[in-house]
Amino acid sequence: MIVEPLQRLSPGLGKLIVFEGIEGAGKTTQIQQTSDWLKSWLSEEILIAREPGGTPLGERLREVLLADAWIDDTPELLLYAADRAQHIQESIQPALKAGKIILCDRFTDSTVAYQGYGRGLSLELIEQLNSIATQGIESDITLWLDVDVETGLERMRQRGSADRMEQADLAFHYRVKQGFESLAQAHPERIIPIDANLPADQVQAQIRTALKSRL
Amino acid sequence: MIVEPLQRLSPGLGKLIVFEGIEGAGKTTQIQQTSDWLKSWLSEEILIAREPGGTPLGERLREVLLADAWIDDTPELLLYAADRAQHIQESIQPALKAGKIILCDRFTDSTVAYQGYGRGLSLELIEQLNSIATQGIESDITLWLDVDVETGLERMRQRGSADRMEQADLAFHYRVKQGFESLAQAHPERIIPIDANLPADQVQAQIRTALKSRL
Repeated sequence: MIVEPLQRLSPGLGKLIVFEGIEGAGKTTQIQQTSDWLKSWLSEEILIAREPGGTPLGERLREVLLADAWIDDTPELLLYAADRAQHIQESIQPALKAGKIILCDRFTDSTVAYQGYGRGLSLELIEQLNSIATQGIESDITLWLDVDVETGLERMRQRGSADRMEQADLAFHYRVKQGFESLAQAHPERIIPIDANLPADQVQAQIRTALKSRL
Repeated sequence: MIVEPLQRLSPGLGKLIVFEGIEGAGKTTQIQQTSDWLKSWLSEEILIAREPGGTPLGERLREVLLADAWIDDTPELLLYAADRAQHIQESIQPALKAGKIILCDRFTDSTVAYQGYGRGLSLELIEQLNSIATQGIESDITLWLDVDVETGLERMRQRGSADRMEQADLAFHYRVKQGFESLAQAHPERIIPIDANLPADQVQAQIRTALKSRL
């Protein structure tokens, strides 16, 4: 098989590629495989990032957010916004300017899906805070790893993972998935749905096809 | 001297009394003395609170905010808003409903003065975040302890206190003081200036006079 090198549309500029989806969608695995694959084709540096986290402040906030202490909905939203604002300033924006390709685990759509659809917070307020935090930076491509709720949670159980998010009830996860569906319908130019119920190598194949057609 | 008992205008409702001012204005001392004095007159419970802090989440955020790690202006603002939103939900609002008198060390005006006037962040953005965080709750009375910048900093030096805020340069503290002046001019119905250059007992006397005329 002859594989043609990728042609980047705007080689001088960085790209923000976001991986979204509910728990157990396989984001971590797919980000690592996508990074390895891109490195073999592109001369640009690849940066792997995640939200919450991604900066020293963000990692501290991640601990606070995933700890057991009670956090009300609005402060939680503001903490995610603070994490994102620091991430944008300290990491994403400089990396884009330096022409890097960023593979980011979660971004603004997660806030809409989890806090908006999941917890029922005002979508208008979330938009407002996303816009303050990102200063207008959007993902170039968002790969939505669309997995069934039960399949995702079963994968989490097998991994033995449990944090505050993952302990939320089933109905919550269905609402979050509905959120990602609505976002994908509203932003087809930016969000690419990927069937994440399939085995990992088939998911990765879909991702490569999607990125080849867009990068 | 015969001291008349205080007459509360609306005895069934709590009151939010905020103490504001730059470093070294004497807020901590005055809050404690005011609390002791109010307890001798009023049957209502007195709650002493502070921002940042005032809740378990807030105390963790206070550590993050006053630590040495670099925090950009916008994330800093969002962290103060998160702290305030939790404080309102978990502490201030229930205390007001229970008819308590709250003596709070810093509130929304500090954000305007420090982040707006001091750091030059958008006053409109700060208003927006204050309004999200407080859900419309304002102080009933704000006692602005107005001290000269040099006097305040000298008091801090004598106390050996130094955190991130206090290490900022002199010009910054002048801008913050200017911020409190502008706020006091714009909101005379809510903000009462107190000359805090005087000895502590004379400052306390001014506070008692002010509260007697307003409570």
